[in-house]
Amino acid sequence: MTIAQPLPSYLVQRYHGWKATAYQENKTWYRRLASEGQRPRAMVISCCDSRVHVTSIFGADQGEFFIHRNIANLVPPYEPDGDHHGTSAAVEYAVTVLKVAHLIVLGHSQCGGVQGCIDMCKGKAPELEAKESFVGRWMDILRPKFDSVADIEDATQQARSFEHQAVLASLDNLMTFPFVADAVADGSLTLHGLWTDIGEGGLEYYDPDAGRFIAV
Amino acid sequence: MTIAQPLPSYLVQRYHGWKATAYQENKTWYRRLASEGQRPRAMVISCCDSRVHVTSIFGADQGEFFIHRNIANLVPPYEPDGDHHGTSAAVEYAVTVLKVAHLIVLGHSQCGGVQGCIDMCKGKAPELEAKESFVGRWMDILRPKFDSVADIEDATQQARSFEHQAVLASLDNLMTFPFVADAVADGSLTLHGLWTDIGEGGLEYYDPDAGRFIAV
Amino acid sequence: MTIAQPLPSYLVQRYHGWKATAYQENKTWYRRLASEGQRPRAMVISCCDSRVHVTSIFGADQGEFFIHRNIANLVPPYEPDGDHHGTSAAVEYAVTVLKVAHLIVLGHSQCGGVQGCIDMCKGKAPELEAKESFVGRWMDILRPKFDSVADIEDATQQARSFEHQAVLASLDNLMTFPFVADAVADGSLTLHGLWTDIGEGGLEYYDPDAGRFIAV
Amino acid sequence: MTIAQPLPSYLVQRYHGWKATAYQENKTWYRRLASEGQRPRAMVISCCDSRVHVTSIFGADQGEFFIHRNIANLVPPYEPDGDHHGTSAAVEYAVTVLKVAHLIVLGHSQCGGVQGCIDMCKGKAPELEAKESFVGRWMDILRPKFDSVADIEDATQQARSFEHQAVLASLDNLMTFPFVADAVADGSLTLHGLWTDIGEGGLEYYDPDAGRFIAV
Repeated sequence: MTIAQPLPSYLVQRYHGWKATAYQENKTWYRRLASEGQRPRAMVISCCDSRVHVTSIFGADQGEFFIHRNIANLVPPYEPDGDHHGTSAAVEYAVTVLKVAHLIVLGHSQCGGVQGCIDMCKGKAPELEAKESFVGRWMDILRPKFDSVADIEDATQQARSFEHQAVLASLDNLMTFPFVADAVADGSLTLHGLWTDIGEGGLEYYDPDAGRFIAV
Repeated sequence: MTIAQPLPSYLVQRYHGWKATAYQENKTWYRRLASEGQRPRAMVISCCDSRVHVTSIFGADQGEFFIHRNIANLVPPYEPDGDHHGTSAAVEYAVTVLKVAHLIVLGHSQCGGVQGCIDMCKGKAPELEAKESFVGRWMDILRPKFDSVADIEDATQQARSFEHQAVLASLDNLMTFPFVADAVADGSLTLHGLWTDIGEGGLEYYDPDAGRFIAV
Repeated sequence: MTIAQPLPSYLVQRYHGWKATAYQENKTWYRRLASEGQRPRAMVISCCDSRVHVTSIFGADQGEFFIHRNIANLVPPYEPDGDHHGTSAAVEYAVTVLKVAHLIVLGHSQCGGVQGCIDMCKGKAPELEAKESFVGRWMDILRPKFDSVADIEDATQQARSFEHQAVLASLDNLMTFPFVADAVADGSLTLHGLWTDIGEGGLEYYDPDAGRFIAV
Repeated sequence: MTIAQPLPSYLVQRYHGWKATAYQENKTWYRRLASEGQRPRAMVISCCDSRVHVTSIFGADQGEFFIHRNIANLVPPYEPDGDHHGTSAAVEYAVTVLKVAHLIVLGHSQCGGVQGCIDMCKGKAPELEAKESFVGRWMDILRPKFDSVADIEDATQQARSFEHQAVLASLDNLMTFPFVADAVADGSLTLHGLWTDIGEGGLEYYDPDAGRFIAV
């Protein structure tokens, strides 16, 4: 039998608060979205981290953003081997079915996944090296980029640079998907790399000409 | 070279609106979250669908919810084969590192992924059967549950029931992860199955005693 | 023969500037809007005044706002007499065809139309009294509300109050349209009264409980 | 009592974004516009359609364009009968009070109003024939021009040609206003007919010598 508990009452209260306010305010729009289907303009790939303000930053929850969240906002390379690939499935659906106009990778400061990868690369996290470590095997996606930040001595600077690299790794891997590359080539899709500072509320975007992240 | 464009200006405007209001209002809290780390009370697994009100329903974006979003809010079974498993990595991180108290699977109405699985099971979506279809291979996770809804004639009812089954399949698969089963066994973690009606703003939870979903 | 001149070159330059930037940035979205049709969430009725920031305030020009602009943002009462009624046609199309969720009347400071109506009511604008004066006859819509501000001595205060009244007159007249009243009654449409201060960039909304305009 | 709701919160966020950026950037200019009054160089008559890029195309919202927007950018003929004529009032104010130098009629592709008129002319829209249909009675302004496009077999071509005719009908009707004809005659006002392709971002102007619309 499926194991489950009722919703904790602190969440029941919040739900009713939402129902009486935001839902009430947007009822007509939500009903139209339900009956007519979604038509999101952008897909956002961000981290699961509870501190990432992905929806509030852009005013989401209104049908405009198709949102995939995983550890460290990573996209694995194209690998059509018949296995379950959740991130690849989300990207495929957004680009080929929903035909979003923008694909945004949103990284962030103080990322635990990125820090774990640094620890692993420095030989300080043997538990993440185990074959059974899902987090370790997931962060393997970012591992090849460590060389580019290995020499940075300041730990905060190194983490920040590696968080930037995580965004770039995802953007680069996105281009290995034929349907992404095709949509970018024919001009129907643009890619965007962002990084947000959780504490300061800052937002930076990657500028390929400058070769670095620049404040919005 | 990494391919990327600057952030579209309509999103720059929204970011600045957030910065001047929600960020300003919560600045002190966000800074504490940045310096002291996240301590989310719950993990939510929901769909990427742009119409799912996951953050607004519970007032998220404030450090309380570790959120993983994928197509059809699915959790694959435990499979420690050394490959990249994004969903499994997110669950592992939430349960073993963050030690969340609640693990919530949130399904929803009008789910395109679930509908695609129905079409596939009825032999009406050959393109999803292809080995290269990431969406098809991802929805394979739900496929074994189709028998339980195959006889429902009304298409809307069948979709709704299968959306419910997607939540139950995820809950069942979660229990195949040793660290989840252990945390549930020692009482440090509870599992919750929810389903929300996008248009009506309704919320239902799975009640194992009743064997069905009940309105909150 | 139709009389017309080519576009002045200063506007040709601006067009090319837009084409190379904002259009380029939003090309995919604009193409989808063209092929799939508009689905605006709100209608805005504002003034023709060149200083009203209606589109930039809300980030319009992206398919979200159906915008009608006329002198003093007025809506005449329901009058299905078979004549040409541009404002009534726009409201009818927005509510019955596009089924917008919100109908927003946006008034503003320093409104020339409202000032003309004050002058007319004070007997200081005989030219506006002429049957041939389109502006005078249009401002007749607001005239019955003058009693409520006639006693205000300070000219600036009086103008501001009458600008507020123009918004309320439009909201009241909107409710005389059967299809507006029906949509409001069944909860599928909400009405909103706003007023913006051009110089200060302020924005106020009408609060029926308070019986006055309140800063956003 | 006047019926109204507060501004939906997604628009409050956008307003604050504008206030913190575009307003801040242009504050001094906006204050001058408020204290010294508007002095627009041109009037634009365009459609209410949410997809028409009227302000962004020319960089409006800065005091330069007096903008009237109605269904299908139509101008009715001169009819000083004492009734409420919103479009005529806007034209009168722009030409006689503001003394704009240019009067621009901007048509566009995929125009729902024009399509409705085609349906009506082909006997396929009985609901638009009703006396109570404001949209139908408004589109009567364009109806006499249908003969010129009736023989075009391709539906897209026919719609495009009729959209062009809507611009010409408005230009012709503008010349029936004595104050417009006078200003054109003494060289203080020029008329311009434009048509924009929503998806492609194209812009065409009417050339009377060529007798057709030509790309800018």
